[in-house]
Amino acid sequence: MKTAFLGLGTMGAPMARNLVAGGVDLTVWNRSRQTVDSLCEAGAHAADSPEAAVADADVVFSILADDAVSEKVVVESGALARMKRGAIHVNMATVSVPFAQRMAALHAEHGVQYVAAPVMGRADVAAAAKLNILAAGDDHAIETVTPLLENMGQKVWPVGASAEMANVVKIQVNFMLAVAIESMGEACALGEVYGIETGKFLDIVTNTLFACLGYQSYARLIRESRYKPANMPATLGNKDVGLALSAANDRQVPLPLGGVLRDSLNEIIANGDGDKDWGALAEYAAKRARIDRSRERS
Amino acid sequence: MKTAFLGLGTMGAPMARNLVAGGVDLTVWNRSRQTVDSLCEAGAHAADSPEAAVADADVVFSILADDAVSEKVVVESGALARMKRGAIHVNMATVSVPFAQRMAALHAEHGVQYVAAPVMGRADVAAAAKLNILAAGDDHAIETVTPLLENMGQKVWPVGASAEMANVVKIQVNFMLAVAIESMGEACALGEVYGIETGKFLDIVTNTLFACLGYQSYARLIRESRYKPANMPATLGNKDVGLALSAANDRQVPLPLGGVLRDSLNEIIANGDGDKDWGALAEYAAKRARIDRSRERS
Amino acid sequence: MKTAFLGLGTMGAPMARNLVAGGVDLTVWNRSRQTVDSLCEAGAHAADSPEAAVADADVVFSILADDAVSEKVVVESGALARMKRGAIHVNMATVSVPFAQRMAALHAEHGVQYVAAPVMGRADVAAAAKLNILAAGDDHAIETVTPLLENMGQKVWPVGASAEMANVVKIQVNFMLAVAIESMGEACALGEVYGIETGKFLDIVTNTLFACLGYQSYARLIRESRYKPANMPATLGNKDVGLALSAANDRQVPLPLGGVLRDSLNEIIANGDGDKDWGALAEYAAKRARIDRSRERS
Amino acid sequence: MKTAFLGLGTMGAPMARNLVAGGVDLTVWNRSRQTVDSLCEAGAHAADSPEAAVADADVVFSILADDAVSEKVVVESGALARMKRGAIHVNMATVSVPFAQRMAALHAEHGVQYVAAPVMGRADVAAAAKLNILAAGDDHAIETVTPLLENMGQKVWPVGASAEMANVVKIQVNFMLAVAIESMGEACALGEVYGIETGKFLDIVTNTLFACLGYQSYARLIRESRYKPANMPATLGNKDVGLALSAANDRQVPLPLGGVLRDSLNEIIANGDGDKDWGALAEYAAKRARIDRSRERS
Repeated sequence: MKTAFLGLGTMGAPMARNLVAGGVDLTVWNRSRQTVDSLCEAGAHAADSPEAAVADADVVFSILADDAVSEKVVVESGALARMKRGAIHVNMATVSVPFAQRMAALHAEHGVQYVAAPVMGRADVAAAAKLNILAAGDDHAIETVTPLLENMGQKVWPVGASAEMANVVKIQVNFMLAVAIESMGEACALGEVYGIETGKFLDIVTNTLFACLGYQSYARLIRESRYKPANMPATLGNKDVGLALSAANDRQVPLPLGGVLRDSLNEIIANGDGDKDWGALAEYAAKRARIDRSRERS
Repeated sequence: MKTAFLGLGTMGAPMARNLVAGGVDLTVWNRSRQTVDSLCEAGAHAADSPEAAVADADVVFSILADDAVSEKVVVESGALARMKRGAIHVNMATVSVPFAQRMAALHAEHGVQYVAAPVMGRADVAAAAKLNILAAGDDHAIETVTPLLENMGQKVWPVGASAEMANVVKIQVNFMLAVAIESMGEACALGEVYGIETGKFLDIVTNTLFACLGYQSYARLIRESRYKPANMPATLGNKDVGLALSAANDRQVPLPLGGVLRDSLNEIIANGDGDKDWGALAEYAAKRARIDRSRERS
Repeated sequence: MKTAFLGLGTMGAPMARNLVAGGVDLTVWNRSRQTVDSLCEAGAHAADSPEAAVADADVVFSILADDAVSEKVVVESGALARMKRGAIHVNMATVSVPFAQRMAALHAEHGVQYVAAPVMGRADVAAAAKLNILAAGDDHAIETVTPLLENMGQKVWPVGASAEMANVVKIQVNFMLAVAIESMGEACALGEVYGIETGKFLDIVTNTLFACLGYQSYARLIRESRYKPANMPATLGNKDVGLALSAANDRQVPLPLGGVLRDSLNEIIANGDGDKDWGALAEYAAKRARIDRSRERS
Repeated sequence: MKTAFLGLGTMGAPMARNLVAGGVDLTVWNRSRQTVDSLCEAGAHAADSPEAAVADADVVFSILADDAVSEKVVVESGALARMKRGAIHVNMATVSVPFAQRMAALHAEHGVQYVAAPVMGRADVAAAAKLNILAAGDDHAIETVTPLLENMGQKVWPVGASAEMANVVKIQVNFMLAVAIESMGEACALGEVYGIETGKFLDIVTNTLFACLGYQSYARLIRESRYKPANMPATLGNKDVGLALSAANDRQVPLPLGGVLRDSLNEIIANGDGDKDWGALAEYAAKRARIDRSRERS
């Protein structure tokens, strides 16, 4: 079985590498050539264009920045038109619900199966092949690609027959992550004005009620006030919160926590910190109460 | 060493029982007699009044409903006045910050040590002696009572020398718990309008990013729409969120998530559901989007 | 000078009528024929298509439902392509900022001046020619159309040289209106639980600190719990709040009151009341506190 | 008829002066002597203590800072105990609902009528005798004091038979005022990033939909970024918003706009601007979007 991979960014590169490591026959394309070369050394084939990459593939993976880039690389480049009838395209990016719906329809027109398979986990998790992968689309197509996906993640979670359902779940999850950060941020600010040291407090909660990855990974950033380099920059985080808010608004679901997140992320970006990790939600919760955590640490 | 225990409610009863089971010499008092008898069968001594209970005690534990009841049972009853000089009073209730400060001062006047030791965990956790216990106050006093506390919990977390600091941490933790519930509630409502079944979604998140007690215990309630009988009724939850908001307001800490929680809990109570567990935050998040989860399950 | 008018809805019809009454030579087009006939009796000329209506016009007015309808009627119909070079198109609808920018550019390509002139005031105000008209675009073009606009309104407010600036102001104003309604709604709910009758309270505030149209017109609806027929249905109101939120988000302006409005409007729509006037924000503020104002009145 | 006046602060002094100007026989007391002297020159009598001031009075007016000061000056000083049976005490301060209820009960025990009569209007309005005065309590007592109150205000608004009802209305009104400020603040911030000058925008809205005192008086502050000296310092404003939030919470009324106000006022105070007028809500709405209005003006 021949496969292709479009988009070798922070997430895509380690994921593609794990496919190759699993013995998968993989042709890769990326906008910048550097990562392509490094993957070829590991055993992948290089392609000069998205079109060329997908031409012979039975299964095409892609993980691109957002709706616009996905549109460009998959559709406008001519790649989709070039895919074989009966091929399966597994889109692993976090895209909007309407875009997922439109892509599914477009692929159907071309006789290509469309599986949405966004992932949970950051770059280090991707490198360790420990991603959790959400998958939605045709049952049979998901079944076909599951063994491939298992090279990249610890578990594949089928979530429904309509492709966009996987994107909805991803949007829900990211919303919950952002809330968890904001929650730690506000709680720490409250504690500090009463002398509760943030590091000690986070130690307690992430070893008891919140002893889980979602909290532990961001507690680390908060404890050290270390928001750069960002795994998830505030600008991207705001895009994701925006996906949740607009999915909610499209079907009239009130989302009060979402409003709090969006306002705070916009404040972060407006104040020049859009390139900080969205863990900086905690920094701004403290800042509003005029707590300067970085100073305390010195 | 002689000890006493005031308040054998849902939490106090199993905690006292674990002290007795640990071989501690314990005299108990409770407003209603029934639980007292049951503890005496297990080996505790009964007292007819708070005063009588504490008279000979080296260490007095209490876990009473709120500030008002604590004041009544500990101070107004004459119990504090009756405690031995040098005795240690370990108050395990969730009380307000100003109340904790006032109690510490009052105890100092009477030559009694005051340790605040609120607990994390619900009744079943208390029964299993798996509580996490936050402790603040004089170092030496904490050291003295730690072996006793270890009969009731899996770990004692010292958080500071001022008694109220343990109450602050408890308030921070409960705030984070309420946010976690609201977060699941909003995320599930968002998912359902796109066909994501709440049970399946909660399965995914509580086995991946949020694989921790704080989320798992409430996910169970939400999945089954089972908010009665309540472990933490909305009314009590609102009191706790109120403690966070007022502690924050007293020292000018903005707490936007706190406002969302308070509004939703008040809506729950105003609509006659104050006796439901505060997990019902999720029910109301769904209700506002007109999702009737209980109907779907039938 | 020849003029045309596209869109004779609740607002457009009385506005066009006032132009005719002012002696202006006006050709009108509307999707449904009925209003056209009635205007012709008043002295207007009828056109069978947008294209036909604008063909000879020096100034074209339009007030259409939203971005999509404006696009369809003005651009896709071929009307813009048909306008005379040097003609002025005065778009009086409430449209989004990016749409206004795109329209301005598109008109420039066709050699047509584009003036954005959204209005403040409801249908009865339009009928009385008492609208306040915001105008943005080329100075000279605004000057040219001002005498015409004065047939429809009491005052023309020039707000800037870029067309979208008038739309921004209109979006700001509608945001403030929605906040004013929500503010009355929450205040009345608070009062009622202490026995303050809503009618009496609104009487006091709309005759003292808030003795202005924005408050008085909605106080009337709230006092009588009369939200149908709607002047501004909740669905349309939510669209307008959405314009504010997205304009704000595009340039990173936190808008906490906007989140409150959007959540409440979505709750209204989700619960089947999308056709009620957005004054129903007050009904839902009361409902959340389980105050049934309509019952009290019976 | 003999009257007394306790508390000659920013509001009390001009109000007392208007009583004297109306020919009322008035004995005044104030914590600091200076204003007393100035009023004596105008024709009032001086008293050395609250007790002495009220001894012979048929009607006692007071307007003191808050619950605590009112308690001290009226109750603890012995003044209430010294009032004549059948006298009427008109409390014109903004106090909390529970305090008003307790005061009414306490006065009843002493055989003194208690009328709550908080006022709407700032110091300049008080000086011009243009206050709007809310009055609640016994009908007959209100009738008796109305001619006296008319020396201080343009209108007396009776709002109910229970004294606290006037305080509720005052709390509702101040809540609405704060919302109006925040609303202008957010709208202006939104406008500025699109080039809409704040002064021009406020001109439009305060001459059209919001042509009323509540908006106009704060628009002036916002336009000039002039928040000192404060008529209503942010600290005091936060106290008033707190009265609304706690009155709402006591009877389970969700108040989402209240949460927004409280968070923003706390941010203002935490950042050292608690002595600025609460009009600074607008400054902080701009600051969060990194708009520096004061710089623009220079």
